[in-house]
This record gives sequence, C-alpha cells and structure tokens, in this order.
Amino acid sequence: MALALSLGRRGMGQCAPNPAVGCVIVRQGRIVGRGWTAPGGRPHAETQALAQAGAAAHGATVYVSLEPCSHHGRTPPCAEALIRAGVARVVAPFADNDARVAGRGFEMLRAAGIEVTTNVMADEAGRDLAGFVMRNELGRPWVTLKLATSFDGRIATATGHSKWITGPEARRLVHGLRARHDAVMVGAGTARADDPTLTVRDMGVAHQPVRVVVSRRLDLPLMSNLARTARAVPLWLCHGAEVDAALAEAWRGIGARLLCCDVVAGQVEAGSVLQALGAQGLTRVFCEGGGSLAASLIGAGLVDELVGFTAGLAIGAEGLPGIGAMGLARLDEASRFRLVETRAVGGDVMHRWQRA
Amino acid sequence: MALALSLGRRGMGQCAPNPAVGCVIVRQGRIVGRGWTAPGGRPHAETQALAQAGAAAHGATVYVSLEPCSHHGRTPPCAEALIRAGVARVVAPFADNDARVAGRGFEMLRAAGIEVTTNVMADEAGRDLAGFVMRNELGRPWVTLKLATSFDGRIATATGHSKWITGPEARRLVHGLRARHDAVMVGAGTARADDPTLTVRDMGVAHQPVRVVVSRRLDLPLMSNLARTARAVPLWLCHGAEVDAALAEAWRGIGARLLCCDVVAGQVEAGSVLQALGAQGLTRVFCEGGGSLAASLIGAGLVDELVGFTAGLAIGAEGLPGIGAMGLARLDEASRFRLVETRAVGGDVMHRWQRA
Repeated sequence: MALALSLGRRGMGQCAPNPAVGCVIVRQGRIVGRGWTAPGGRPHAETQALAQAGAAAHGATVYVSLEPCSHHGRTPPCAEALIRAGVARVVAPFADNDARVAGRGFEMLRAAGIEVTTNVMADEAGRDLAGFVMRNELGRPWVTLKLATSFDGRIATATGHSKWITGPEARRLVHGLRARHDAVMVGAGTARADDPTLTVRDMGVAHQPVRVVVSRRLDLPLMSNLARTARAVPLWLCHGAEVDAALAEAWRGIGARLLCCDVVAGQVEAGSVLQALGAQGLTRVFCEGGGSLAASLIGAGLVDELVGFTAGLAIGAEGLPGIGAMGLARLDEASRFRLVETRAVGGDVMHRWQRA
Repeated sequence: MALALSLGRRGMGQCAPNPAVGCVIVRQGRIVGRGWTAPGGRPHAETQALAQAGAAAHGATVYVSLEPCSHHGRTPPCAEALIRAGVARVVAPFADNDARVAGRGFEMLRAAGIEVTTNVMADEAGRDLAGFVMRNELGRPWVTLKLATSFDGRIATATGHSKWITGPEARRLVHGLRARHDAVMVGAGTARADDPTLTVRDMGVAHQPVRVVVSRRLDLPLMSNLARTARAVPLWLCHGAEVDAALAEAWRGIGARLLCCDVVAGQVEAGSVLQALGAQGLTRVFCEGGGSLAASLIGAGLVDELVGFTAGLAIGAEGLPGIGAMGLARLDEASRFRLVETRAVGGDVMHRWQRA
C-alpha cells in the first residue's frame, strides 16, 4: 500500500479534477502491475496496472489508494474492470467520498465475490488525497500558502526590491511544490509588482499548473509575462462583477479564462474565489501571496497548509509585510497552525504547518 | 578536551568578566581532577581541578579550555600552580588574548619543562569563549538577539497584546539562554509595554544575569517589576547625557546602575551601549528586543547571533514588527546571517543564525 500511495503521488497536481491514485497488483508475492492516474486524469491507475498485469491479475491482490470507481464517466468503471480481470482481493484506505461512488465500488467488488479490505494506511492516503476529498465535501480545493520572507517577515524592501530573499535551493523547492498543485495563485499586487510567469521550471513536468490571479477590476498589465504566455499555459482571472467590458474582452482575447466572484468590502472574497476554482475542477491550489490575498485567506480560515521559508536577513519595518492587515486585537483571535516539519533548505529555514 | 569544554560551558553567563573555562586532569588514563570557573569568576577551573587531584596531579596531563593565566590578579597565576603541582603536560585550544596573558602562560609552563600542546579543538573552544575573546579584542560583549514572532514576524497585536505568541517549551528555552549570558537587555519600549522581570526562572542558577534597559531619558516607570527587584538582581540603565537629575537620582536610589552613552539622531547609539557594557566586564549579552533596539543593533552590524522562534499564527500587518525601521532600499544592503541550526521546540520553530 505504501508503494501504491507513492505511485499515486506522482500524479499530484497533474490530474485534477480526478484524484491522484496509485495501484499495485501483487500475485504470489510478485508485483505484476503498477499504475497511477495519468496526467489529465485518464486512464485511471487501476486500468494501467491491470493492463500491465494482463492474465497475471487473475487471483491477484490489488492495492489501490482509493476505492475503485463504480460509475460510467468518460471511461467504464474500474470496479467492473477489476471484476472482469478476476482479481481475488482489493485493499484500499477508504471509500471515495465522490457522491457518484461513495462505497458502491466496494459493493460491486464484494457482490462479485472479491474480498475487500479497507482502512489500510488511511491517514497517509487522507493526506495525499486531501484536495480531492475536500473538493467533494466543501466544493473548494485544498489551499497551500507559501510565504518566503526575511527573518522579520518581509517580502520586499520599501522600494519593492525582492530578488532574492531566499536562496536557489528554496526557490527550486518552490517549483517542486508548484508542480504538485493544480494551480498557482497570486493577488493582483504581486502580479503587477513582480511580473511573474508562475510556471514550473526545470522539473520535467508533463502538465503546467493553471495560473490564477485575483484581480477585482482586471486592471493588470496586458504587456506582462502572464499575458504573453496565456495561450501556452492556462491563465484564469478571478474578478468582481464590475469590470470594464473591453478589458474583459481583451483578456479573453489573449486566451485567459475569466471567473466572476463575489466582492465584499471592496475586495474579491476569498471563499468565493475558492468555490469558483473548485467548480472548475481544481483540487489543490498553491498561493504565493501577496500580503493582502494571504491575509484574506488566513482570516477566512481557508489556508490548509502554510509553507514558510525564512532567510537570514532583516529588512526592517518599512519593508513590505508578507501578510497584510488582519484586524486582530488579541492573540486568541488568531487561528493557530500546527507545526508539521522544519528543516534547513540551502541557507534558509523551511517550516511547514497545517491548520490546527 | 571535549569534557573540559563541556565543564567550561557550565560557567557560561556566571563568571564575567572572567572566561568560563573547564579543566580536566588525567593521570594514567584516569580522571583525577575536574573543575570549571566558579560563579563570579573565582576560583579558576585549574585551581579547582588541582585541588581535587591533590598529589595525583604529579606527572599528569591537564586539559584546559584556555591558556592558563600568568598574571597576579585577585589570585596567583594558574600557570604557577600547575608548575608547583608538577604536571607533565598541558593541552589547550589556544592562547588567551587578554593582553596580561597572551602566551605568557604557555611560556611559563614550557620554561618549567612542561610539555604544552595547543590548537586542540580550537573551533569549539572559540565558539564557547567568543564573548570573552571579543571583549578583549573589540571592547564589546558578544551579542545574541532573540526574536520570538508570529509566522509573519510580529511580536504583538496592534493593541500591544503579546502573551503568548510562542509556547511554554520555547519560553523555557529562552530562560536557558538568558542563564548562559551575563546580561539580558531590552529597549525602553519593551520595558514599558511588557513590564518584564527579565530574570532566569526555574533553572536553578546561582547567579542572575544583569538586566540592562536602554532608555535615552530614563523615563521608565518607577513602579515596575524591574524597579521593584533592582536591589535583588542588578539593573543597569543605559541612557543619554540629557536626563533629568531627579530621575537619575531616583533610579540610583532604588539600586540601579546608570551608564551614560552616546546619543546619535535622537537614539542611544548601540555601539556606545555595548562599549559601556564591555567596560563594565560583560562578555555575553542577550537582547530580547524590542523592534527599535533590534534594528539599531542589526543595522550597526553588532548582532553576532540571532535566535528566532516562529509560532504558527499570523497577526497581520497592523501588528508590532519584531524589527523596527532599517532604512534599506535594496536587499544587498542588508547584512546576511548564516543558518546554524533549526529545529522544532514544542509547537514552535527555533532557528539560530550567526553573522555570515
């Protein structure tokens, strides 16, 4: 099962809205088939592992990191394929919480006389599939917020100079993190100030994450790296209802997808953005700031994981804060995160936290 | 020698202006004497180890973490005592850079026919004795700056609420760090806002570090924990030349020591504060903020070690910054620190850096 989970993680960020599932088929102590959800979400892990196993799947045990699907989508159900292949036993962490499956995959297998074992490595699988599970439950993707700051929590000097606070090793890790998410998201301020491309570089990925920019009025530069690359890599803009029609048309014209979201107190509402992204099929979103978007996501309790990089320099109080205004009076009003991991990455400190 | 260094560290923060030295006497493979500089600086490590060894010191090897002293101070020189005890060999990391010793201890031993080996574990000893060495060279103590902040580098909410950002384990570690320094230092703003005691609690220390507050005008509350305890634990106030005479008299009256320092651009100058503390015999100073004092120390290149604690909560941009204004335009103007260590302490991240 650990191998199945590890294979599944290969698809992370590559197959939304489908879950990144891994599958291992074992017969008489030998691995006869391995598979994971392909980029784009098809074929499924089980299909690929069964194809690899061929006749050897007969009487075999199948380890799969999520309940096999039971519904006819773009492909026939995996439960049906497993039955047809004559497997003897299926081991899985838990049932799929997709309403179209929800235990019916296991039922189909059991009805066909296949032994089904569940609750195996459920915690680990739960972490890997958190985005998929969360979207099924809440309609929104899992949100990882990255914050790379100086020792004193600043992301740039007062004059906007920010290259580079952290070292090359930390920046490379960030590209790895982008690759394992379905989308990379920034606020309009960051898009304007840094002119980023937000692609995954030097990682050999098959599939670039969607780039999402939250901009109430769509008043972003049309001469920018994001705009220039909008046909090559998806660019989605989350905006408010009141936008200039010509501007909207211009963005659509260069290939961007526009998602209209709620505006509250003059800001695009973070929850509405995430619902829109979930509706578009995203299960894992990697937010890279800036300060206002980070503050509104944290304030609304919408950050599932925080990844901090702390560099060994002080920028001082005039510097740009990594997290914007939050309106807290007392510490007990702040939501706490639980430390998951800390280690040195090059000359910087990486620390990872999850919602407590 | 590792044991001698480890014994020496027991005296850290307890024996300024003397160095915290450790000594181990070995004869025929057996440890016959151990000692370390006593609280207050006397007796010296060698004296205590020799007393423990008695006649067994004859023909023995002495491992000592610094060159034995050669001058008559309040006690006769240790080099003389070692010669009198008839030891065969002395092993040390390096010569004492105190002008009164500076190799003369080794010369005395060699002249008496004792074999002297130096340059043993010199890097480790250099770290342990950095404060002593620095005061001899530059006249100022080693400075450790502690900064316990939220994920976004804040030390309190906008309303000043700061209890507690970090957890009990981190706070306990801070008491351990205080105990290994000769003094704990804060700025006037922190003294006013937090009404701290700045003592070492629950550590069983023999000797409390001096409490230092930097306050240009001495306009600190006389009804405060620091003032109340000024007779029990030394309280030193670093102020500018222009202070109210009655105020100065009041502080002296309750037992504080006043140190007049230079004022530059309306602020007590950090370099001048450290020279004054060095002149008073301090070798290791632990600065606990606030933001202005931290910024002026870092800005002047006077922070030798940074110890950060990062807690898993965001306070937001209105919160009080851990490091005040520094006037940097570009990142390359900021001095960089080199990461020495990072680990979880309770639910917080501890990261330790040294001047690059």
